[in-house]
Amino acid sequence: MTTIDRAQHDKLANAIRSLAMDGVEKANSGHPGLPMGAADVATVLFTRVMTYDAADPRWPDRDRFVLSAGHGSMLLYALLYLTGVPGMELDDLKKFRQTESKTPGHPENFMTAGVETTTGPLGQGLATAVGMAMAERMLAAEYGKKIVDHHTYVLASDGDLMEGISHEAIALAGHQKLNKLIVFWDDNGISIDGPLSISDNVDQVARFKACGWRAERVDGHDPDAIEAAVRRAQKSNKPTMIACKTIIGFGAPKKQGTSKAHGEALGAEELAAAKKNLGITGGPFEVAADVLKAWRGYGKAGAAAHADWKGRYEAMSERKRDEFDRRQVHGIPAKLDKAILAHKKALIATPQNVATRKASELALEAITPVMPELVMGSADLTPSNNTRTKAAQDFTPKTPKGRYVRYGIREHGMAAAMNGITLHGGFRTGGGTFLVFADYARPSMRLAALMGLPVVYVMTHDSIGLGEDGPTHQPVEQIASLRAMPNMHVFRPADTIETAEAWQFALENTKGPTVLALSRQNLPQLRTDATATNRSAKGGYELLPAEGGKAEVSLFASGSEVEIAVAARKLLAEKGVKARVVSVPSLELLLAQDEATQAAIIGSAPINVAVEAGVRFGWDAVIGEDGGFVGMHSFGASGPYKEVYKHFGITPEAVVDAAMKRHNG
Amino acid sequence: MTTIDRAQHDKLANAIRSLAMDGVEKANSGHPGLPMGAADVATVLFTRVMTYDAADPRWPDRDRFVLSAGHGSMLLYALLYLTGVPGMELDDLKKFRQTESKTPGHPENFMTAGVETTTGPLGQGLATAVGMAMAERMLAAEYGKKIVDHHTYVLASDGDLMEGISHEAIALAGHQKLNKLIVFWDDNGISIDGPLSISDNVDQVARFKACGWRAERVDGHDPDAIEAAVRRAQKSNKPTMIACKTIIGFGAPKKQGTSKAHGEALGAEELAAAKKNLGITGGPFEVAADVLKAWRGYGKAGAAAHADWKGRYEAMSERKRDEFDRRQVHGIPAKLDKAILAHKKALIATPQNVATRKASELALEAITPVMPELVMGSADLTPSNNTRTKAAQDFTPKTPKGRYVRYGIREHGMAAAMNGITLHGGFRTGGGTFLVFADYARPSMRLAALMGLPVVYVMTHDSIGLGEDGPTHQPVEQIASLRAMPNMHVFRPADTIETAEAWQFALENTKGPTVLALSRQNLPQLRTDATATNRSAKGGYELLPAEGGKAEVSLFASGSEVEIAVAARKLLAEKGVKARVVSVPSLELLLAQDEATQAAIIGSAPINVAVEAGVRFGWDAVIGEDGGFVGMHSFGASGPYKEVYKHFGITPEAVVDAAMKRHNG
Repeated sequence: MTTIDRAQHDKLANAIRSLAMDGVEKANSGHPGLPMGAADVATVLFTRVMTYDAADPRWPDRDRFVLSAGHGSMLLYALLYLTGVPGMELDDLKKFRQTESKTPGHPENFMTAGVETTTGPLGQGLATAVGMAMAERMLAAEYGKKIVDHHTYVLASDGDLMEGISHEAIALAGHQKLNKLIVFWDDNGISIDGPLSISDNVDQVARFKACGWRAERVDGHDPDAIEAAVRRAQKSNKPTMIACKTIIGFGAPKKQGTSKAHGEALGAEELAAAKKNLGITGGPFEVAADVLKAWRGYGKAGAAAHADWKGRYEAMSERKRDEFDRRQVHGIPAKLDKAILAHKKALIATPQNVATRKASELALEAITPVMPELVMGSADLTPSNNTRTKAAQDFTPKTPKGRYVRYGIREHGMAAAMNGITLHGGFRTGGGTFLVFADYARPSMRLAALMGLPVVYVMTHDSIGLGEDGPTHQPVEQIASLRAMPNMHVFRPADTIETAEAWQFALENTKGPTVLALSRQNLPQLRTDATATNRSAKGGYELLPAEGGKAEVSLFASGSEVEIAVAARKLLAEKGVKARVVSVPSLELLLAQDEATQAAIIGSAPINVAVEAGVRFGWDAVIGEDGGFVGMHSFGASGPYKEVYKHFGITPEAVVDAAMKRHNG
Repeated sequence: MTTIDRAQHDKLANAIRSLAMDGVEKANSGHPGLPMGAADVATVLFTRVMTYDAADPRWPDRDRFVLSAGHGSMLLYALLYLTGVPGMELDDLKKFRQTESKTPGHPENFMTAGVETTTGPLGQGLATAVGMAMAERMLAAEYGKKIVDHHTYVLASDGDLMEGISHEAIALAGHQKLNKLIVFWDDNGISIDGPLSISDNVDQVARFKACGWRAERVDGHDPDAIEAAVRRAQKSNKPTMIACKTIIGFGAPKKQGTSKAHGEALGAEELAAAKKNLGITGGPFEVAADVLKAWRGYGKAGAAAHADWKGRYEAMSERKRDEFDRRQVHGIPAKLDKAILAHKKALIATPQNVATRKASELALEAITPVMPELVMGSADLTPSNNTRTKAAQDFTPKTPKGRYVRYGIREHGMAAAMNGITLHGGFRTGGGTFLVFADYARPSMRLAALMGLPVVYVMTHDSIGLGEDGPTHQPVEQIASLRAMPNMHVFRPADTIETAEAWQFALENTKGPTVLALSRQNLPQLRTDATATNRSAKGGYELLPAEGGKAEVSLFASGSEVEIAVAARKLLAEKGVKARVVSVPSLELLLAQDEATQAAIIGSAPINVAVEAGVRFGWDAVIGEDGGFVGMHSFGASGPYKEVYKHFGITPEAVVDAAMKRHNG
């Protein structure tokens, strides 16, 4: 246990409170309540508990701290400054919430060194931390505890625990017995609308226990009690939730304990009174020299452990170190391209007319041997998503080397955990569900796109082509809605070869996530070439040229409808109309090409018709507002899939009609 | 307690099992496991517990039954047939999962009389039922127990309880002490990937208790035990969860108790063996005459209660009856148009340069006095969403007449509960959150669109205009993604008048949901007219014509950017370029107008430029692929909002540049 006496602890904690109040006051925007209320918990963590080296916030074996309550960002920025993370200066704190500062309104890991993950949308930090703890266990199983042995600590708010994703996260963590995950709940009893009691009366300790956690209550302003609780947690074989009873805005005489302390500057008078109350002297952003010195000391306390670790790391073989380093930064495996090319060639030699979900499985069988860091999983749809290769082993508490995660019926928790696995370092990851259930996972997918995390979503049953399950299961607008998301790539491959190319793109694009929208129904293998070039990587390409002269019609299609476009081209030829087919596995990637490239692919036929079993939304950018579109204009319907296609008029004949109407008109 | 002996119960339950097996077998698609496993629970409910009159499945005071495990739809269809709901014949069961049948793959309330709500996406039925139970209490408080006094029963699967939304739903129900909500958990221990134990080990009984519920365990194949548990539940002052231990695919000798019974036809051999095992005779879809007669008797058992109710209903005054009936079918209040016109006139008399979230509050103050059925709420953002009128009272267990719901930080649960409130009858409803958190609520919003429920989403903080909270809170793609959803209307009004018109549209469109995307920042009142016509209802209109001749440029904008378009028009005029401004409060509504109307609104200026603080996706349909677009091409950033607008180049000057580039080019 600690040697820090209470008076010294208070000085350290009050430095956080002081900077948080000043930062929010200067910005006249932000949330002082959480940093003031949770300062004691954070101080215990950063002075007594966590092993970290402020000088190197990327040290792979550091303990992680996730501020799930992202609105309390000044808590984190104050800690980064006080402990001495390079690049976080007082001036940065003074620029809190200003454009392009290192101190944005909510913590953004891509803006600020030392921020483990972007948080703000409630529940995400907690659920992401579950993935981090999973990755820690996986990597430790592979490299041993000498190289990987750290904890993941989370500070969560009432809101984090009210969001549904929290259930998926804690049930998953409890099931996996992630005993190195320790969550502090900032139990301040206040939300924006007022006392929490007006909307919630969940017994959180009992709830966590029901989900397989250790859980206990402590006084969140008693540092020794907090530390003792952590020590107990560290010895448990379960994850632990420590409910810390705190006072929001601790120290602000009039506002503390009320929702007024939550989301706005205290105001000069209240701020002054709070500082007086807490015994804080000095002007705005001033930290007493002895206090800063003490904090900086804690920031350096882990340097020795870091150096020891470095020694153990250096003791590994060079090959092992290189591989460890490559995987930390998501480097692309050297043999990936070759493996995919070989796979494409094998497909050309023995064509496979299979569903693209099956094609994805075939691609995975080719990829996983050269990509040991690939962790796959599914939200309880393994036999439908085809995400599990033959050699895969489940990741369980007893088999931590397993690389296949049974996420359960938890799409949102899965997506957040995948963010955490990716952020942790050491792994790439993909997970499966039905495409329509992207809606359940969307907030976490958006964070992957925002943070630029190369997560792969294997989303099968990608249209009305799934048939009988009907409109609740048939995606219609999901593809458009995901295309609209910045930095999210959506691929809807047409056959086995395009599926392999989509996987290649997804794995080689390390700057953002990719959705693979895959069919349930079988599709013909259309591609007859297998060059090293990834033809899908520009989003679109001419699959079949017009025959016998200049194209009168360009037919655009993605996924399962490319087959329809190919059939329509033939029917048009029978009518003497020359048509080409452009396969568009990724519409938004095509639209992201430079103008000349786009123009070359889109072509200049006088008539454009697109066919896709989804809504038109977005296609006008390719076909023009006068272009023909054969697709969905409503939700789907239950029935055998070929009948459903007819029912909604998505057929070669309809494509021909759309073209001829414009040809004759 | 019952007078039905065990042998008779078994015959009744086996009739369900038999029809479910046959339906799935004939379709060669579907889920036999749940109907077979839960047949005993369902039989107890429909023969001993529920008060209903199969002849009139719309009787307002019927007990509700929600099959949250929608994949088990054959259970419900069998019950509708057996109890004698008009229009559900054996032939319909034979058309299970066929196009346009009354027996689609998952229950669709718009296809099939007697289906209370569309289910299939897991967790939705449970969370919708919470709203139904809230509406029951609200309506009972208003009309008395003589008119409104029924229970809401739910059959939920493992998947329903694993989805995050379940936490939001049960925490809300527990908090509201919805004691007339009784949930049966079909605890069969099997999911698609295999035994549930590979992904979950939550103690659900303890979990529900932690959330303020009664909860107990029973043998799900012991009808008397199930009934006794319901009787206890009916006496509780809390909602109750009854964990029913069942065997999935009960009766199928080889497949029962395994995931093989879950999601595919049993196959002829196993089906025959199951029927033999259960003592079922007769061919496919045959129900023994005595068993059918008994079932039909139960279907009529509630007719007397229905007739009694009818008497009490008739005893109400004609005025009260008319109002009750109007509200059952979401009829538009007679005084609504007048109230909105008066409000618009008042705004013209005293213009208000306020945020549209504030404009929405002003509109609500005008609307609520003429619309007593309007239930508002917020997911813990009341002071930000401005959803609570001055006279509003909170809905709590002690104040069931309150019409304002404190949903807590539960966007998904709120959206599902709003579906339930709307489905129940008697209420219209709207709820608030930040627009970016539409992502959290999307699966329930999609169901509202699919079912055609006129729910209103008050989604404030609708762009980078929210400023300092940064990219996690700034919607960029949400508007496009919601526009892409069939039957979802999105309004992004530009000022107080458009906001009033958007509310008018939302309330008068009783066939689907509406999103109101509202600004945090103040906006000038641009409109100067206040006619009875809802000018926003066509999605777009010319706000300002070109001056001094034919328009050279059409400027399109929505919401907060209409002000920017107006400023750009002025700057262009200074350059001698004639521009008009088209306000587009609802892009997809504009695109849904007939061609002539669209053409008239869009106009024929040679240059089109749109400005919207969101992604371009979707705008090409108006401005063409050569049109200019000033908007977002990435996620947002934290900073004071005026700076953020400048940072991303969304300014009048940028609009002018986009127009001039095309003017000179």
